[in-house]
Amino acid sequence: MTTSRYFTLKQFPEGLPKREDFALEETTLPALDHNEVRIRNRWLSVDPYMRGRMSGAMTYIEPYELRQPMSGAAVGEVMESNHPQFQVGQRVRHMGGWRDVAQLPGNEVEKLPDYDVPEQAFLGVLGMPGMTAWTGLNRIARMQEGNRVLVSAASGAVGSLAVQLAKSAGCHVVGVAGSDDKCQWLEERGVHAVNYRGKDVDALTKALKDASPEGYDVYYENVGGPLMEAALASLRDHARVAICGLIDRYNDTEAGAGPRNINQLLFRKARMEGFIVMEHWDFYTDFLGEVAPFVEKGAIDYRETIEEGLESTPDAFIRLFEGSNFGKMLVKL
Amino acid sequence: MTTSRYFTLKQFPEGLPKREDFALEETTLPALDHNEVRIRNRWLSVDPYMRGRMSGAMTYIEPYELRQPMSGAAVGEVMESNHPQFQVGQRVRHMGGWRDVAQLPGNEVEKLPDYDVPEQAFLGVLGMPGMTAWTGLNRIARMQEGNRVLVSAASGAVGSLAVQLAKSAGCHVVGVAGSDDKCQWLEERGVHAVNYRGKDVDALTKALKDASPEGYDVYYENVGGPLMEAALASLRDHARVAICGLIDRYNDTEAGAGPRNINQLLFRKARMEGFIVMEHWDFYTDFLGEVAPFVEKGAIDYRETIEEGLESTPDAFIRLFEGSNFGKMLVKL
Repeated sequence: MTTSRYFTLKQFPEGLPKREDFALEETTLPALDHNEVRIRNRWLSVDPYMRGRMSGAMTYIEPYELRQPMSGAAVGEVMESNHPQFQVGQRVRHMGGWRDVAQLPGNEVEKLPDYDVPEQAFLGVLGMPGMTAWTGLNRIARMQEGNRVLVSAASGAVGSLAVQLAKSAGCHVVGVAGSDDKCQWLEERGVHAVNYRGKDVDALTKALKDASPEGYDVYYENVGGPLMEAALASLRDHARVAICGLIDRYNDTEAGAGPRNINQLLFRKARMEGFIVMEHWDFYTDFLGEVAPFVEKGAIDYRETIEEGLESTPDAFIRLFEGSNFGKMLVKL
Repeated sequence: MTTSRYFTLKQFPEGLPKREDFALEETTLPALDHNEVRIRNRWLSVDPYMRGRMSGAMTYIEPYELRQPMSGAAVGEVMESNHPQFQVGQRVRHMGGWRDVAQLPGNEVEKLPDYDVPEQAFLGVLGMPGMTAWTGLNRIARMQEGNRVLVSAASGAVGSLAVQLAKSAGCHVVGVAGSDDKCQWLEERGVHAVNYRGKDVDALTKALKDASPEGYDVYYENVGGPLMEAALASLRDHARVAICGLIDRYNDTEAGAGPRNINQLLFRKARMEGFIVMEHWDFYTDFLGEVAPFVEKGAIDYRETIEEGLESTPDAFIRLFEGSNFGKMLVKL
């Protein structure tokens, strides 16, 4: 008999989620059904988008249900398989995260792509966050060589890859982050760093202008709030703003003030577009073919912040909103 | 000796422009230079975008200079020509408006296109406002047959054509206007009308939902302010917002609150894009070829609000912001 321990939501969080919003539960798994696979998870992903699933309302993704097993990306090892395409011992990726043992239909499981990288890279630099960075820059913002590119949350899982992809495409890249450490890391990558801490809209606008006096062709937006207003004030003609996330407001309990300068989109003939990476997943192999070789040879410096043990999953998730993670936040089981 | 009477700005208006901000001046024109054309204006155009030129700052168009002749679209008759392409008596269009007699280089003057329509139509339905409606719907918002299309300022010079173009493209069209008259006109065109007067964001949102319960694929934005917030709350997946104008804020003396729900662009994977029609002028003949035949045969109901006499030009302009014009605002000389 195999048991699975999994997290559920006890209630929908108000504001910043708290440890008490989550419950760790345990169940005995039924025998494997036809075509099912049982997986011992080794790495769990926690991601900002999950906050949107904790509101009880449909956003761009289905909400988590209270008292039901939560889900999310995970990498694990096949323990048992009733599906012809999977054998015991294989490393796989799937959405049965927030638990130690997952049992899923084989068509919801994929073998890890065949690149010589650590397996958890497929949750970060070569997984959803990496694909998100690549999609926003290339498919939404139509980044071109020589563009001035601004990235918010530039040391996060998505932003830290976005700045490096933009650098390698021959762009002038400015990254916004929230600590001296993070800014130093950015500067070492050849990225002009702006520390947002303690800066209001005017100070942010000035800092963005100092970092790129001619403004920005591309804004890769992960944050929103005052930074969006400062960025809108700094657009070049025909700029493209790719909205990947708006983490500044995910925990707000009421609607916050919007940018007072939406008219900049008109003055600059600029475009702002939201996207969700899942709709672009057909291009995942293009992304892998382009980016995985760089990761294999160590040409991309991807960071991970790792918490140990299933019990730490809610804490790892909550840390995303404190800005204390550097690169991809992972839980190692 | 020919004199020209022309308007200048005495000072940059604060808030809503006042009659006293403008001065009517007179000058004796010099003899025609080589390649110049002298034109007696018959129709002057006043347009909301001119407010942006009265701020002393660069927006998307050069500002008017104080104490210098103002400019704008006009249709007139050639009085005298030193340019081989123009003969006395020809009807032409040019940017030497806000005056009775214009003297310009011939390369800044164009003959009226050869369609059987009243000459002032080339300042409205077949001029810049018409081209703006067509460009926003087709080139920016990529309107498709069957789309649900929302148009603000739907009885204005641009909006009144936008709703009819969207109808003729087989769309479900909702128009927002500010009086019962205007709403009745819209309903007679087969457009679902929403009167914005007296409605806050919540009431507007409800009215937009009632008018198209499934939301909107296209929002043709002329207004901004609370209506933009209501429209963002009503977008369908992959909606496109074409920002043509934001007249709600043109007279504001300080930045107003922005839409509190920019996150809808993310949730709906939607796009918002500002444009200026001048950048699309290469497509003017495409527009004319498509729309002018409809105008010739009376299949497009375009309205004009006409003031008489050069002296009334500032008043005609100011009326644009009172919402009292219906269709294209013109001054007849």
